[in-house]
Amino acid sequence: MKSVNEYIDQNRDYYINWLKEICEIPSVAAQNRGMTDSVDYLKGLFEEAFQQTPEVLKTSGYPVVFSHLKGTGENTLSFYNHYDVQPEDPIELWNTPPFEPTIIDGQMYARGIADNKGNLIARLAAVHAIKNVIGELPIDIKFIFEGEEEIGSVSLPEFADEYKDKIRADGCVWEFGYRDGDHRLQLSLGVKGMLYVELFSKGANTDLHSAQASIVESPVWRLVWALNHLKDENEKILIPGFYDDIDPLTKEDEEMIKHYRLSENFLLEHLNVTNFVNNLEDEELKIKHIFEPTCNICGIQSGYTGEGSKTVLPSEAFAKLDFRLVSGQDPDKILLDLRKHLDDNGFSDIGIRSLTKEKAARTSPTERITKAAINTIKSSTNEMPNVVPSTPGTGPMFELCQKHGIPAVSFGVGHFASNNHAPNENIFIEDFIEGIKMMASFIFEFKNEMEQQGAGIRDEVKSQK
Amino acid sequence: MKSVNEYIDQNRDYYINWLKEICEIPSVAAQNRGMTDSVDYLKGLFEEAFQQTPEVLKTSGYPVVFSHLKGTGENTLSFYNHYDVQPEDPIELWNTPPFEPTIIDGQMYARGIADNKGNLIARLAAVHAIKNVIGELPIDIKFIFEGEEEIGSVSLPEFADEYKDKIRADGCVWEFGYRDGDHRLQLSLGVKGMLYVELFSKGANTDLHSAQASIVESPVWRLVWALNHLKDENEKILIPGFYDDIDPLTKEDEEMIKHYRLSENFLLEHLNVTNFVNNLEDEELKIKHIFEPTCNICGIQSGYTGEGSKTVLPSEAFAKLDFRLVSGQDPDKILLDLRKHLDDNGFSDIGIRSLTKEKAARTSPTERITKAAINTIKSSTNEMPNVVPSTPGTGPMFELCQKHGIPAVSFGVGHFASNNHAPNENIFIEDFIEGIKMMASFIFEFKNEMEQQGAGIRDEVKSQK
Repeated sequence: MKSVNEYIDQNRDYYINWLKEICEIPSVAAQNRGMTDSVDYLKGLFEEAFQQTPEVLKTSGYPVVFSHLKGTGENTLSFYNHYDVQPEDPIELWNTPPFEPTIIDGQMYARGIADNKGNLIARLAAVHAIKNVIGELPIDIKFIFEGEEEIGSVSLPEFADEYKDKIRADGCVWEFGYRDGDHRLQLSLGVKGMLYVELFSKGANTDLHSAQASIVESPVWRLVWALNHLKDENEKILIPGFYDDIDPLTKEDEEMIKHYRLSENFLLEHLNVTNFVNNLEDEELKIKHIFEPTCNICGIQSGYTGEGSKTVLPSEAFAKLDFRLVSGQDPDKILLDLRKHLDDNGFSDIGIRSLTKEKAARTSPTERITKAAINTIKSSTNEMPNVVPSTPGTGPMFELCQKHGIPAVSFGVGHFASNNHAPNENIFIEDFIEGIKMMASFIFEFKNEMEQQGAGIRDEVKSQK
Repeated sequence: MKSVNEYIDQNRDYYINWLKEICEIPSVAAQNRGMTDSVDYLKGLFEEAFQQTPEVLKTSGYPVVFSHLKGTGENTLSFYNHYDVQPEDPIELWNTPPFEPTIIDGQMYARGIADNKGNLIARLAAVHAIKNVIGELPIDIKFIFEGEEEIGSVSLPEFADEYKDKIRADGCVWEFGYRDGDHRLQLSLGVKGMLYVELFSKGANTDLHSAQASIVESPVWRLVWALNHLKDENEKILIPGFYDDIDPLTKEDEEMIKHYRLSENFLLEHLNVTNFVNNLEDEELKIKHIFEPTCNICGIQSGYTGEGSKTVLPSEAFAKLDFRLVSGQDPDKILLDLRKHLDDNGFSDIGIRSLTKEKAARTSPTERITKAAINTIKSSTNEMPNVVPSTPGTGPMFELCQKHGIPAVSFGVGHFASNNHAPNENIFIEDFIEGIKMMASFIFEFKNEMEQQGAGIRDEVKSQK
């Protein structure tokens, strides 16, 4: 690997320039900005790096940029990334323009640089470096770059079903990856699922003088009461059966949670809060974070929200909620249960609009790809990664990987304060360079692990066909 | 009165123009817009109408415009109105610009036209017409125009104490007045009180990716739970002792409530709702509307409220609430009880900001001014007014009148669908013109009633001094 690492060092400015160029494109999927430019840029980048034009696969939304690079070995590794980014609002809180990547004290700031263009480029660069130093790739590499991750990967399930042969792989490196506050690398083995809904309530046909509140029903009170039936003050979610289908923790999970490190004091101080929910700590806190579902209010609005007092009985109210789901939970079932629960409690007047449904996904710590990742990180960073059994975040890992028998792991170039989805998103340049080297090493490590297993495309996948 | 009425008809466009001009001023006290312009406009209007500059009496907030016009009789009638208006939000629901008064099919639309610039101008116009036709006023007239009614008349109690001699009168015509759906005029003999508070909750020092909702406390959930401790699903307010101090209904009240007419079906149809709260109707509904306090959510906000889904754990949340209080209830005591109630239920983290505190006020149906109003309305409209023992709305009637022994009645130029505090606020032009005539008649009727009583400034007031 020495020569590959040397090559990466010699070409660091070249790769940093790729990163800079892609971060200049405002590829905000939610607002249909810069999406075609991103696809064109990626096409050009593949042609420059690999003298091969990638496929631009149509979906019902933004296309997937797909490339299959042949290698000498039997195995296939895929990289799942996304070229879309979150909106840059609130723009006034950025210290530098979000689409003019700027390096300050070793950190590059730009919208999408951590989530997830830094990882996308680092992975391309790793494959490019191997190819240029060795002349050929040790295994087959597939790049799957979608354009709708930040809007819930709406077209990806259909895509993954349509192209299930194309996306087949022995393992997948998932899009994200972070370092903890002490610079230790996280290795994540799963994602939570999600049900995102909007609850809404309507009253009279117009806002009224609040004197009328004596006799006219209030939709915002109705919404508040309905919400109160969803989660109690001890964080227990009250939808009957909500917890029933959750996969119980295995011995493996319990072992992992012991070793998983959550820097509690660091986090409390960083967020300026005095305690976590229900005053949890240690083991219980970690289990809640990793293995339990949530019911979170992302937003709520009704009536007058300006300065001072306005005495009005609002005519409508809404709340946006995300339920983060864990292994075993089915968002479709929970949506039905939510409807029934509201009805059963006298809230059939509360409307539900479903926006996102994703299942959780998990990869076993005993998978070859997990071992390859741990070995790579250990030898690159001289310490064990902080293995996260499942990130508390969400992504389409179930649809793209688990459903097709492909184990997936996640590690990358971000850090605990990368400000994903927030102003001043950033990564450290040195993390980016080290991330390229690490991913190049991983490709060889993965090949070795898989060859010990002696399997090509996973048998399970073959037998499923 | 024939000649006064003729004069009003001849000058209708002149008075409509006054109305148009004053409604062009965006006098939103909550946002400190157009307040000085309003005072200047009123000064000019008094000078034009009565060749007399009104006093601009400083308060700790916006000034009170005060004018005392001498008459030939012994008695004094005051008019309480306000030159401030509610904010115009939500602006997108207005069919015409809120500060560009527009006449469509006999109705003029503008923010504040019903509440309460239509009445303010109608009363000025009535006095102007009498003076121009008769040459002198039959009694003393005092105009008291405040600028903070829509923000809870915060400076008025202090003002009323400081200027108690100046505001002394034998009776007061209160700011508002409406017609029912069948065009019958309401005569209101009181107002509810109010406690307006903002409840707020803070969490981490920044909005977070909602994956963190598994372990970081949510201020918006805290707020929702706290609200749930304030009122149950059957509209019962849960603050201990809340109902204890309410004055019981007198025989007079029970008699009045029998005759008071609430057009239930009309209202249901007009608001496009199927039922009133708790499916109440008839006597129970009227009592709830007139004699019971409320706890209403005027507004609530937290987190992401735009299109589609954003997965965020908001760092703060707030709600604006108004409690409409009835005779006997003390807003100061209720504020303390509210704080204690939240604390007792584990919600000491919820902050309370108090914005308005007002006591309820009532005028007896046997007062001379009540009789004068009934007589005037009967002879002007050929039917009995719909006497409302106390309007479900609020105003500083306690501080300005009841506390100083001045009985107050309310009738005016609005109608049941005037959309006070809401988009497309409006009055009928013909109601405005008729309202001017009725107020001119009332001034004479009031003089007659008082002279039968044989008293000048009320004896009770004198003995209080």
